[in-house]
Amino acid sequence: MRIVVVGSGTAGSNFALFARKIDRKAEIIVIGKEKTMQYSPCALPFVLSGKIPKLEDIVVFPNSFYERQKIKLMLETEAKAIDRERRVVITDKGEVPYDKLILAVGSRAFVPPIKGVENEGVFTLKKMDDVVKIKEYLEKRKPKKAVVIGAGLIGLEGAVAFKELGLEVLVVELLEHLLPTMLDKDMASIVQKHLEEKGIQFKFGVGVSEIIGSPVERVKIGEEEIEADLVLVATGVRANVDLAKQAGLEVSRGIVVDEYLRTSDKDIYALGDCAEVIDAVTGQRILSQLGTTAVRMAKVAAINALGGSVKFRPVFNTAITELFELEIGTFGMTEERAKREGLDIVVGKFKGSTKPEYYPGGKPISVKLIFKKSDKKLIGAQIVGGERVWGRIMTLSFAAQKNATVEDIAYGETAYAPPISPTIDPITIAAEMALRRFR
Amino acid sequence: MRIVVVGSGTAGSNFALFARKIDRKAEIIVIGKEKTMQYSPCALPFVLSGKIPKLEDIVVFPNSFYERQKIKLMLETEAKAIDRERRVVITDKGEVPYDKLILAVGSRAFVPPIKGVENEGVFTLKKMDDVVKIKEYLEKRKPKKAVVIGAGLIGLEGAVAFKELGLEVLVVELLEHLLPTMLDKDMASIVQKHLEEKGIQFKFGVGVSEIIGSPVERVKIGEEEIEADLVLVATGVRANVDLAKQAGLEVSRGIVVDEYLRTSDKDIYALGDCAEVIDAVTGQRILSQLGTTAVRMAKVAAINALGGSVKFRPVFNTAITELFELEIGTFGMTEERAKREGLDIVVGKFKGSTKPEYYPGGKPISVKLIFKKSDKKLIGAQIVGGERVWGRIMTLSFAAQKNATVEDIAYGETAYAPPISPTIDPITIAAEMALRRFR
Repeated sequence: MRIVVVGSGTAGSNFALFARKIDRKAEIIVIGKEKTMQYSPCALPFVLSGKIPKLEDIVVFPNSFYERQKIKLMLETEAKAIDRERRVVITDKGEVPYDKLILAVGSRAFVPPIKGVENEGVFTLKKMDDVVKIKEYLEKRKPKKAVVIGAGLIGLEGAVAFKELGLEVLVVELLEHLLPTMLDKDMASIVQKHLEEKGIQFKFGVGVSEIIGSPVERVKIGEEEIEADLVLVATGVRANVDLAKQAGLEVSRGIVVDEYLRTSDKDIYALGDCAEVIDAVTGQRILSQLGTTAVRMAKVAAINALGGSVKFRPVFNTAITELFELEIGTFGMTEERAKREGLDIVVGKFKGSTKPEYYPGGKPISVKLIFKKSDKKLIGAQIVGGERVWGRIMTLSFAAQKNATVEDIAYGETAYAPPISPTIDPITIAAEMALRRFR
Repeated sequence: MRIVVVGSGTAGSNFALFARKIDRKAEIIVIGKEKTMQYSPCALPFVLSGKIPKLEDIVVFPNSFYERQKIKLMLETEAKAIDRERRVVITDKGEVPYDKLILAVGSRAFVPPIKGVENEGVFTLKKMDDVVKIKEYLEKRKPKKAVVIGAGLIGLEGAVAFKELGLEVLVVELLEHLLPTMLDKDMASIVQKHLEEKGIQFKFGVGVSEIIGSPVERVKIGEEEIEADLVLVATGVRANVDLAKQAGLEVSRGIVVDEYLRTSDKDIYALGDCAEVIDAVTGQRILSQLGTTAVRMAKVAAINALGGSVKFRPVFNTAITELFELEIGTFGMTEERAKREGLDIVVGKFKGSTKPEYYPGGKPISVKLIFKKSDKKLIGAQIVGGERVWGRIMTLSFAAQKNATVEDIAYGETAYAPPISPTIDPITIAAEMALRRFR
């Protein structure tokens, strides 16, 4: 068995490692454009800010680690085409035959066609090289004012990094509030207030129409021109589908796969940012593009490519971030999206403290839970707070993954100790609030 | 409707509050021995250590809070008997008629019949008054060496408090390791090592046979006599069942209730430490005696006593503590108990870090998961680590409450961000370890 993996990122690297654990003999070859195997793209903002001291640190394992496990690496190599009839990947360094082909070709930063977006001082934050370029620019130009386009996760984490580096920061978001796909406005406003207190400024409902100067001097936002000497474009990512398209595989916004992660060609699997998954709430095909999803897809694809049979489960897109000591966790459906899609929901909200009142050091925490009206299932959660948000969003996500209802949360067993959490947890109370509205 | 609650602790106070939320008109009377309504007994060790500055702080709400909600308080009053025929509670201040009677009479510290256990300088740590007495003694006698009898939660939290107050501390436990009902020996040894590094000493497999001197001067452990000028007896609690017994209600180790929390008399409910609940793993009746269980029972009993119908769910006894910055979380079945009870299990263990390797500040964390061999269900978990143990034990507990299998954990969706958690969570890897043993 000869398994060829195209892509050396999180999905491809983890696939190779999982496959090797399952099968000691299979020939495993990874074709990758970069010099190294997987690194954590989510870690880039923290390298930028200096919290992670060295860029090399975020490379998960050295190449030798894979080679010791007899995973053959063809790095700095580009896959140009797939010849499915001959079962061959055509690269810039020759042809590579396969029995099973794994497409883990990832995604790329989406850069909108803004005038001047190619100018010096305009960056994305998707690859290791991006951090190198930004750091060089910071060193050379000593910019004072950053404009971040897009208030998604990477935009906000980048904004925090720039602020920590001493720049003035303005975030411009076309939609109505920050983290627009993850949070509703009520929850987003808590985050916004916190970031504004830390000195980050925001403009919502407007786009950047022009970047002026190279190196950047100003950006045009609506009719207004604003001084800026660094621009970060953080307007999302796009799945890399060209190779799959060329090969005649079924492609939508991402590569289409079945529940075993097979593409329309049963000897070719796709996983990670390039592949579509099923939304656990709506059943629709979506792009998840989380590192955790990539790893989980790799695990399932490795089992299936090597003769096993495990279904990849629909995803809730459980996500977490920390912005200036404020934790933000979410998954699933938001109230705004439910409204857009005409889905009947019941909401439970509660604002409390992370510790019992009598214990010093409690921090504010806000919980918003979204339940489906028809069957009372938990289909979404948003939590913003000073600590222990991650644990709560994990708890709720696993509950939702097991089809928990509003009663399961409201009557659920929690763990309490004075230094750690209140006797009646904020997630319990939020569920009780929702439960009353069901009555 | 006249509802009489006997007991002003966590169960009784919460019952009164929940009942009032459901029914604005019902007459609600609470009979309690103490001067105040509920306080958090779990907080007592932290008052002792000074982390919670004032003892009064742990009283959850002032009496006036209940009175404003038209909950009638009969405090410093002792219920002496129940006349079920006349539907009357007989107290030392007269008779109180009821339509529904709620027994929330709690538990008391169990003090084994050790010679000298009544001597000056020997304490329990169950009630507010215990802290007052210990503090007075610390002030007056300035003891230097504490012996703690019992290495359960209260024993260890007490030991930490004494250590923080500058005393030498020796913990003596009759069983083989610390937290013997919550942890297996492998996990307990991590905690023990941590506490020993902080200067707490341990003796296992031996009991204290005599306490010598009043005030205490020495304790006899096996054949050995050890200097000690303070002794804390933390050998568990016993359900208060005398009142129920006198009234002719069905009583075992605790008051027996059905799944609606009704005693053998359908107009009398029992809840909190005095009542038995169902073990979620074995289906046996057990005493849970956690604050969270008391609150959850109060919620269910309030609904049912006022005409609703909600079943109280079996409990996993999810618990958490923090001992010198080490978090310990557990629920359900241990490996040792499974062996004793002849239950076939599969164990998954993993030791890792709380953060990705490349992110500074990660702390060691050990996860042990117990699955039932026959149906792969998660029936127990033990986690010991430097941070974010609570979130993981909550996650696993809610998963178990929803009948999660080993696959549900191994393939479950987690939330990852570099400052917060690794891409592949320790709980995922521990489940994978178990999954391999199922194959």
